[in-house]
Amino acid sequence: MPNEHDHIVRSYDEEQQRLTHEIQRMGAMAVAQLEAALDVMERRDDNAAERIIANDEAIDALEHEVSQDVMKLALRGPMASDLRIILAALRIASDIERVGDYAANMAKRSMVLNTAPPVPHTGGLHALGRLAAEQMREVLKAYKDLDADAAQRVRERDTELDLQYTALFRELLTYMMEDPRNITPCTHLLFMAKNMERIGDHATNIAENIWFRVHGDQHPLPPREKRDDSSAISRA
Amino acid sequence: MPNEHDHIVRSYDEEQQRLTHEIQRMGAMAVAQLEAALDVMERRDDNAAERIIANDEAIDALEHEVSQDVMKLALRGPMASDLRIILAALRIASDIERVGDYAANMAKRSMVLNTAPPVPHTGGLHALGRLAAEQMREVLKAYKDLDADAAQRVRERDTELDLQYTALFRELLTYMMEDPRNITPCTHLLFMAKNMERIGDHATNIAENIWFRVHGDQHPLPPREKRDDSSAISRA
Repeated sequence: MPNEHDHIVRSYDEEQQRLTHEIQRMGAMAVAQLEAALDVMERRDDNAAERIIANDEAIDALEHEVSQDVMKLALRGPMASDLRIILAALRIASDIERVGDYAANMAKRSMVLNTAPPVPHTGGLHALGRLAAEQMREVLKAYKDLDADAAQRVRERDTELDLQYTALFRELLTYMMEDPRNITPCTHLLFMAKNMERIGDHATNIAENIWFRVHGDQHPLPPREKRDDSSAISRA
Repeated sequence: MPNEHDHIVRSYDEEQQRLTHEIQRMGAMAVAQLEAALDVMERRDDNAAERIIANDEAIDALEHEVSQDVMKLALRGPMASDLRIILAALRIASDIERVGDYAANMAKRSMVLNTAPPVPHTGGLHALGRLAAEQMREVLKAYKDLDADAAQRVRERDTELDLQYTALFRELLTYMMEDPRNITPCTHLLFMAKNMERIGDHATNIAENIWFRVHGDQHPLPPREKRDDSSAISRA
């Protein structure tokens, strides 16, 4: 009997590890997609963009697997701490899935930009994208290490990304006003920039779920001010 | 003993009903917020906009409650069908929470628009918003009735919303090209329109989760083409 019990316990742990591992893999894929999308934008490479768009399905499929694994884990009769793991896993997987969507959307918009002459204003977007990718990488490391303090630091750094986004937003509006031919491409850049800012929000959500997984609801993080400062720009 | 068992079973059902009821309430609040935001945009009423922004916290608080209730339900030792209810509830609550965010963001952007002379191009946005609210109302009704076919119809109608969004996107680009003074306000309208299109996507997600709750993974819905046609607009 003790043997059987050990067996059950071990394989429960194994399933939990499998879950965490799947999420790690999802996260690594989403970051790779994001970085590929940023690269593709610079190189104006439609074939690579198409691959990024197609790859997004793999991330979606992984999220589906995570949900299945969560179901299996919960069926085993979870205890309170396990539920925290499960709830955090579901939410983190969903945030990663969205990051993958934004990377694919960036690749799509790059292809549209490639139908017109190159726009010279992509440097700021590239920098913003790199910052977003960095935030994602850091928060996924914090999840791997279950390091709530590192997660908290990622969350704090989101302000930097918001500031860069707001500056880029203003800059793009200026280009649009200078020359009406800039309006269509810069509108795509605006949406791409917004996507990068949203990726930062998802990194923040993941950080909050790491904190919740480690500390539970008893020690909630202090509330943060809402982001999206571009909505406060009345005139550029 | 049978009495006690009855008691446990009944109160489990009660908790499940409480969960569904909370989600209904969340949904009704999000739709009310969305409709208020559309109204506020037309009336240029800053005070009402501030109330909408403040109200968003109540929706966030309800989502937190739903998560808590899900934890409690799962702790009771769920069976496979219950897990489907629980998983669907978590996802639907998260989609509703995002709809609330979009309503609040619309109110914020309305306040910014109110710092400048009225823009005459808000009719299309209003129509798009009404369609998004209608989709949400229908899908919440489908959730209340657990009507997978009604949910499926909501999902099909999302194409209409996408088409309207794409048409509005083109229209707004034209206004921006006509007069550079339109650029800043129309950029806000573009983001507001995108928010409405996203609300349609969340209604679709909810529809898919109703389908999953009713039919499980054995009868998945056929895959749908990805939305966001505006990314395909190269020149307006």
